[in-house]
Amino acid sequence: MDKDFVVGIDIGGQSSKLGIVDARGEVLAQSVVKANPSADAAVIVKELAEAVLRLVAQSGKHGQIRGIGVGAPNGNYYTGSIAFAPNLPWAANGEVKFAKMLSEACGGIPVSLTNDANAAAVGEMTYGVAKGMKNFIMITLGTGVGSGIVVNGEVLYGSDGFAGELGHTIAVRHNGRACGCGRNGCLEAYCSAIGVARTAREWLDISGEPSLLREVDNITSKDVYEAAKEGDKVALRVFDYTGRILGQKLADFIAFSAPEAIVLFGGLARAKEFIYEPTLNAMNDNVLNLWKGKVKLLFSQLKESDAAILGASALAWEL
Amino acid sequence: MDKDFVVGIDIGGQSSKLGIVDARGEVLAQSVVKANPSADAAVIVKELAEAVLRLVAQSGKHGQIRGIGVGAPNGNYYTGSIAFAPNLPWAANGEVKFAKMLSEACGGIPVSLTNDANAAAVGEMTYGVAKGMKNFIMITLGTGVGSGIVVNGEVLYGSDGFAGELGHTIAVRHNGRACGCGRNGCLEAYCSAIGVARTAREWLDISGEPSLLREVDNITSKDVYEAAKEGDKVALRVFDYTGRILGQKLADFIAFSAPEAIVLFGGLARAKEFIYEPTLNAMNDNVLNLWKGKVKLLFSQLKESDAAILGASALAWEL
Repeated sequence: MDKDFVVGIDIGGQSSKLGIVDARGEVLAQSVVKANPSADAAVIVKELAEAVLRLVAQSGKHGQIRGIGVGAPNGNYYTGSIAFAPNLPWAANGEVKFAKMLSEACGGIPVSLTNDANAAAVGEMTYGVAKGMKNFIMITLGTGVGSGIVVNGEVLYGSDGFAGELGHTIAVRHNGRACGCGRNGCLEAYCSAIGVARTAREWLDISGEPSLLREVDNITSKDVYEAAKEGDKVALRVFDYTGRILGQKLADFIAFSAPEAIVLFGGLARAKEFIYEPTLNAMNDNVLNLWKGKVKLLFSQLKESDAAILGASALAWEL
Repeated sequence: MDKDFVVGIDIGGQSSKLGIVDARGEVLAQSVVKANPSADAAVIVKELAEAVLRLVAQSGKHGQIRGIGVGAPNGNYYTGSIAFAPNLPWAANGEVKFAKMLSEACGGIPVSLTNDANAAAVGEMTYGVAKGMKNFIMITLGTGVGSGIVVNGEVLYGSDGFAGELGHTIAVRHNGRACGCGRNGCLEAYCSAIGVARTAREWLDISGEPSLLREVDNITSKDVYEAAKEGDKVALRVFDYTGRILGQKLADFIAFSAPEAIVLFGGLARAKEFIYEPTLNAMNDNVLNLWKGKVKLLFSQLKESDAAILGASALAWEL
């Protein structure tokens, strides 16, 4: 029987999503496994394998699965391991040989694994706005800031599989904000969902300017987005600032790999109406003359619920 | 007859060096062509071609040259052109199809061209301290700061052939120095020979601290090096500062491509005794935990006079 289908799994801190995908990038069936915060790696793998096999059986694709692609925080393509992933209790304090374990638990179906941002880049190259591109940079603007760098049509993994940590390059060197990685001034501390909320809270603290956000307890980036949609000036300036910091760094990234495009993805990319212009302007204002106006700034258009599964599944076609 | 030899040409603003190289990286014969500041591209190519053919004839290798590799400022591997190179009057204001012109002038010997920093990276990978490495970053610290990035054993050229302009990523975002590229705060404005001299001059202007450099008119980086060798405290601090700025940026570069090593090359790299420690310390202090202490900081050890020729010649083996 031809093996014309793959499984994509997106491992997250709250839940993992999985789906069966055909060669055209249609998600034929999908399901969700809620995170079990007290389970160890063996239990997590067993639960996921059961969910995979159930989904395969339900959709009548037994024997037709070519492979399983997994995107996971701190996933390493070379080793197939997930290691020291702060948001995954079962992989927070050591190395879990996830690809090997999952393949065994699924009766030997081959498993390929990478980090979530690289998976998103592969998905975008296979099914999304980067289709046909050989050189682009994917920036995922979510709880954190991740990146997947594609060079000559392949994800850049570097010497150890961990290349592309652009969220942890320095955006603000002088009195930069503390970042979750233990350093200061990282791009992630400014241009993540958490960074946006923090910018709003800091600005409200130091100014007396009226804002819809003053009525909100424990401001999130979603609150800032809602306020911006109402025309709130503080919220609009927060996005402007966020886009400016992002665009400045994008200019540096361009000097590295001369990509055809930068693709933004993730929760914050949904605020395109507010961050597109400041980001693009800062990128072009700060980039070397030879690239001014030449590098595209694109936003992922993959269907929200499918994007993570598609990205992970695309890995499995190479198996 | 077997074609077992290649020619390497290093094009510079003052002079161009050329040599015949065998497969073991021995420079069998070499010569220099002085820059002719009033000549146009056609004349420059003709002079160089004559020098190549003379050298080939003198060394009895007629018919045995596989190809010619050229390293040139603003050289583009994809197009074979040199374009808008400020230090080359004959290529400063437009695009010169150099590879094609030189090949024709040399009776059809194939020519491959890239920028000087990429050529240095290829040379280091073929003959130098990066031999056998698949992922490393070459930083050339000369009049300017250039870079050649090697990923999976190949130079990263990006979508347009201009990837790897790390000298023009921003080192100092706040009140950064004006750079020759028209922007402010570039790494090149601090960590080039010109940057070192400028740091020394600025510091002497704002402090009354005694220094050997106060007796020097129009301080160069070489003067700073000589003073540092004499134990001059200002000169030593200039190198310390230069290394610190460089190391901070190297930490960011590591987050991009996760190289096995960073290789420093060029005039300023000769001040290894003064910049190695501050650079390495700043790199490890500023890099993400996962790379702390893991990425090697190496200095090119190719014989000074041969390095540029070897780097360029290594390109020609791929022809």
